[in-house]
Amino acid sequence: MFPKAVFPDTAEINPQGHLVIGGCAAPDLAAEYGTPVYVLDEATIRARCHSFVSEFQSRYPAARVAYACKAFINPALARLLYEEGLGFDVVSGGELATVVNALQLGQSGRPELDHVYFHGNNKTPQELAEALEQSIGWVVVDSFHELELLNRLAGEAGKTQNILLRVSPGIDPHTHVYTTTGILDSKFGFSIQTGHAALAVRQALAAPNLNLRGLHFHLGSPVFELEPYRVATELVLRFAAEFREEGLQLQQFSPGGGFAVAYTRDQSPPSVAAYAETIVSAMTATCDDLGMEPPALVVEPGRSIIGPAGVALYRVGAIKDIPGVRKFLSVDGGMGDNIRPALYQAQYEVLAANRANDALSEKVTIAGKYCESGDLLASDVMLPPLEPGDLLAVPVAGAYCPSMASNYNLNPRPPMVLAANGASRLIRRRETYQDLTHCDVA
Amino acid sequence: MFPKAVFPDTAEINPQGHLVIGGCAAPDLAAEYGTPVYVLDEATIRARCHSFVSEFQSRYPAARVAYACKAFINPALARLLYEEGLGFDVVSGGELATVVNALQLGQSGRPELDHVYFHGNNKTPQELAEALEQSIGWVVVDSFHELELLNRLAGEAGKTQNILLRVSPGIDPHTHVYTTTGILDSKFGFSIQTGHAALAVRQALAAPNLNLRGLHFHLGSPVFELEPYRVATELVLRFAAEFREEGLQLQQFSPGGGFAVAYTRDQSPPSVAAYAETIVSAMTATCDDLGMEPPALVVEPGRSIIGPAGVALYRVGAIKDIPGVRKFLSVDGGMGDNIRPALYQAQYEVLAANRANDALSEKVTIAGKYCESGDLLASDVMLPPLEPGDLLAVPVAGAYCPSMASNYNLNPRPPMVLAANGASRLIRRRETYQDLTHCDVA
Repeated sequence: MFPKAVFPDTAEINPQGHLVIGGCAAPDLAAEYGTPVYVLDEATIRARCHSFVSEFQSRYPAARVAYACKAFINPALARLLYEEGLGFDVVSGGELATVVNALQLGQSGRPELDHVYFHGNNKTPQELAEALEQSIGWVVVDSFHELELLNRLAGEAGKTQNILLRVSPGIDPHTHVYTTTGILDSKFGFSIQTGHAALAVRQALAAPNLNLRGLHFHLGSPVFELEPYRVATELVLRFAAEFREEGLQLQQFSPGGGFAVAYTRDQSPPSVAAYAETIVSAMTATCDDLGMEPPALVVEPGRSIIGPAGVALYRVGAIKDIPGVRKFLSVDGGMGDNIRPALYQAQYEVLAANRANDALSEKVTIAGKYCESGDLLASDVMLPPLEPGDLLAVPVAGAYCPSMASNYNLNPRPPMVLAANGASRLIRRRETYQDLTHCDVA
Repeated sequence: MFPKAVFPDTAEINPQGHLVIGGCAAPDLAAEYGTPVYVLDEATIRARCHSFVSEFQSRYPAARVAYACKAFINPALARLLYEEGLGFDVVSGGELATVVNALQLGQSGRPELDHVYFHGNNKTPQELAEALEQSIGWVVVDSFHELELLNRLAGEAGKTQNILLRVSPGIDPHTHVYTTTGILDSKFGFSIQTGHAALAVRQALAAPNLNLRGLHFHLGSPVFELEPYRVATELVLRFAAEFREEGLQLQQFSPGGGFAVAYTRDQSPPSVAAYAETIVSAMTATCDDLGMEPPALVVEPGRSIIGPAGVALYRVGAIKDIPGVRKFLSVDGGMGDNIRPALYQAQYEVLAANRANDALSEKVTIAGKYCESGDLLASDVMLPPLEPGDLLAVPVAGAYCPSMASNYNLNPRPPMVLAANGASRLIRRRETYQDLTHCDVA
């Protein structure tokens, strides 16, 4: 009845029928922080970091895990991930600044940014200048424009920048078309198929202020199949081998992220071990076959670390029963804090967080409070009979929910709480009405 | 060649081939404020306010225009709309606070809030308490839960609140399923068809702390047809007439908004005059037929006022030509500032804002800088050959773009500029990296 597999590791139902996360009961969290609120389970975050690090490093010691900040990042999380030994995949100047500032807090000097990777199909000149200024480890170059721009900016800064090239392997990972990134018709990377990747390798090797040290690809997200990773890993390594004599030393190999998680009880994504086994075995076998020294490996999980750690709590308000059509339960959040159902037709489980032991006797649709009909969090889910004031929990809410949140309808964005061992602490406060006009000029 | 119909009233192309808005050339605006930037044409905003007020009031003096803030609101805009004589349709405590605070600035007392309408399918107890506290003119009650809650809160506050009931007429306006609101299977309003609307009228008339003064309906947005307004107006008025003897005095009638605008050159929405003629004639004819005193009329345009006044300016960065497949031009904004293409499959015109006189010889796709493939602003649009650094303008960007903007990828949200008579002023500054962690707790 309780779909434990999609909830954080520490989640349980107590005898009162309350959902408990990190030892904190949902009604207590809702009372203390208000609703909606996003609760992150610290144990799950650390366990999933550890799982990625150990599953990859046990198979291949020169493996490194960089967290994909786009899933969600803030200062408290950045420090926690750093403690767990993760690097960072950033995609904007804002993500870079947030990570840099978070790691600097409490330290005397500048943070160690060797394991920061800057991705993106259109980094601006300002963002590249900031990356050079911070001396981050890696820029993952995505276009000829960027190759020239970064080479010029590095020269002006008197630096040599280590880079990877993002190549597009032309492989369809069978996920949502919005998040399929490694196919030919993509804004990302240099296509191997068209010859652009070969041209980019030669230009990068010739660029005086760039150090081409490896290749990156990304298939999309979430990818539920293992075979695309195996095929793409082999394909990209064979591509790299063609340039050995032209001077390409493949010191880093990055097959990206996109690792799937279960959003609903019927989904069974591969385990972290299975992803690790597939990628590491494909890489080592191909390198063996090519007589190539195996490169350092970097993988970039985002969703698969923070997604399952997060639970959104909402309070039920208006209930509207349209006989023979649908029963709507409206909650105090919606598409402003979770755009995924409307944007990607994402499916979620929903749990009555204060009545989790009651029989699931009603089929209902969970509507948000935003003024459009598309603002539905989940359709046709089974719940016990509920009243205004009851609490709903939406699991797997850590990734691509707060990170994509808006102030649509001028609703303040929710707070975020880290729960562990029966204690909770705010890592992001709720926005106030004043915050909504913070940047407005009278 | 220049699709003038979808650009603001003052838009023109100067001899240098630059787009000019409110007398300000796009390259100058981009240089002064950076890109992306949202430019609002003050003349268009005022002209469209005037058009709604005059087209409705010339046909029916007891007509009132309330601006639907959800399209976009900020303090500067609120004051401009107030100057034009508009009321406000708000859908959250945040919108209410923004309007109240904006109108108070520079005034001694509290603002006149008789023409504020509070909508929404799930107003929270706190929001209703705030509405009572501010003594706003109208709460548009959407559910039985709200009817009871507002009656109780009004009683506790020692007030009698004027209300409208939102009824659902069961009419399909043929717009996007996400923004179709007046059909039976909807989270909004009391369905006439099911008998809930009749029950709600009776409960509202019996509620001691509520004054039921009228009815509201909303069909959806954008609605390109006139007939749904005519049919729904007649249907809702006939419904109201059934309750005359039970004490319903229809003093206000609100057929909502949802008035369409042209996003692309091939679209021809009805004129404001046509909407006014349809609604006023349907209302007066039906009232005549029913022997009913015609009520005050309130219409709620949002998109149709602010949408066509706004133009987004972006700078081109990486250009990626995949032979035989697609040429991608990436810009420095995207789904973070305009989610509409990804969310509603919205179509936009795109103009080369610094080369508007060049021949349109290339078919290209405009990609954003966000790290997902779904981040495309426009597909297969014709543009002249462009270089990194060139400027693109996306018109009809005033509504549901900044209002739905997120910090996805931790990209700062763009500034907004009001342009008029060759001068421009910032009404919202660009977010800084510091703003991105403004609410984070270390």
